[in-house]
Amino acid sequence: MFTLPIRVYYEDTDAGGVVYYANYLKFYERARTEWLRQLDVDQVAVAQELDTVFAVRHIEVDYLRAARLDDQLTVTVTVKEMRRATIVFEQSILRGEEAVSKATVKICCMSPSKLSACEIPPFIRERLPST
Amino acid sequence: MFTLPIRVYYEDTDAGGVVYYANYLKFYERARTEWLRQLDVDQVAVAQELDTVFAVRHIEVDYLRAARLDDQLTVTVTVKEMRRATIVFEQSILRGEEAVSKATVKICCMSPSKLSACEIPPFIRERLPST
Amino acid sequence: MFTLPIRVYYEDTDAGGVVYYANYLKFYERARTEWLRQLDVDQVAVAQELDTVFAVRHIEVDYLRAARLDDQLTVTVTVKEMRRATIVFEQSILRGEEAVSKATVKICCMSPSKLSACEIPPFIRERLPST
Amino acid sequence: MFTLPIRVYYEDTDAGGVVYYANYLKFYERARTEWLRQLDVDQVAVAQELDTVFAVRHIEVDYLRAARLDDQLTVTVTVKEMRRATIVFEQSILRGEEAVSKATVKICCMSPSKLSACEIPPFIRERLPST
Repeated sequence: MFTLPIRVYYEDTDAGGVVYYANYLKFYERARTEWLRQLDVDQVAVAQELDTVFAVRHIEVDYLRAARLDDQLTVTVTVKEMRRATIVFEQSILRGEEAVSKATVKICCMSPSKLSACEIPPFIRERLPST
Repeated sequence: MFTLPIRVYYEDTDAGGVVYYANYLKFYERARTEWLRQLDVDQVAVAQELDTVFAVRHIEVDYLRAARLDDQLTVTVTVKEMRRATIVFEQSILRGEEAVSKATVKICCMSPSKLSACEIPPFIRERLPST
Repeated sequence: MFTLPIRVYYEDTDAGGVVYYANYLKFYERARTEWLRQLDVDQVAVAQELDTVFAVRHIEVDYLRAARLDDQLTVTVTVKEMRRATIVFEQSILRGEEAVSKATVKICCMSPSKLSACEIPPFIRERLPST
Repeated sequence: MFTLPIRVYYEDTDAGGVVYYANYLKFYERARTEWLRQLDVDQVAVAQELDTVFAVRHIEVDYLRAARLDDQLTVTVTVKEMRRATIVFEQSILRGEEAVSKATVKICCMSPSKLSACEIPPFIRERLPST
């Protein structure tokens, strides 16, 4: 399972003294991006050379505990399912042993020029751990 | 059904040329806040005087189309379900007639001092349309 | 002087209970965008048809008072100076009569394809109030 | 000179394909926070136990080059001046050798309960490199 450490800064929090609910989605995406990077996939090159971007189609997020300023969190990434054009990730945000949030994220490969779904580039598919 | 008009600014977009997926959650919350306001509920006063805040517990979001810079959107709010401590909202983001996104949002009343769930303040419950 | 009303939402605040310092820049930009719009300038069309975007080159911001959740603010826009490729704006954020923040913002017209400064499109210049 | 490495994610960019101008302020603050942390200053404890927070009073930012998605940046922090209640920082954001942005940031120690300026806590002052 891939993990990314994340520190909570003022920018992430709100007047309730906790991390603002939309900002967990930033943490989840940073982890998916770093997961791609450690597979040696360069998102910018894939977009420019293969006319393919990864678009989020559906998310489901549980907010279990409140993360706070200065918290040191760990974001996890697991591939739950892969199809021709879509990948479903299971992710979580942990503070030590306890789960702060859990998420299921469905992304779809898109061709920006055609504005339509397209196949996951084969070279990426080959690098993904089979599930 | 309550609706709030929202304009898309540069701050909302990302390098993909579309609204960044986390930022839809900001639009959804602005609409819930204005929905409370038109019921004459002052969130800041409720927090200070009744030790009660509204915390998001669960969200489910469909991303159906891409919203873009300068788009004029409409965010909708409907109460789907109400219990002792929780409210479930059905929300959508429309561009003209077409749905850009749909969401189900479950919020829970919390006592910040006790760090535990608490009842929806009765005066708020009375103002909510029965469902 | 052009003015834009802005409401402070949770997304704008931080754990200090006030508007996060970077988010004032979002308010300032929303006001500049609406100022352009009321001059009937369509930023998206200008970018696509004239290969011209407005890039911020320099800002100077005074933080005078703290804006808070639910505050109703007014953002002002005045053109202080205009040259061939640059415009300097004087802006402020007011809460009622009191100034919450003041800013000087220098923007430059840029050609994204040439990555270099370019002239302010003449049709925009003609619509700007002379200073 | 203290430095912090920062990676640019989608959340940081806008539809112009570059880092949104307000988001550089987040990078600058992350670096000041980590600078404090390596001096072994715990901002949360200082706020709770000493009733003292660091509030930004004035910023001046030069935007010299555009940072882009996936860029690996370095944010620098130098103390330029220290007085009884204020510190002035010189900061920069570098991409390799080239400066992407430069900033001067004046912060002021504030007592949240008294809503007024207060002295820099002596234990922090002692740990600051003299200038």
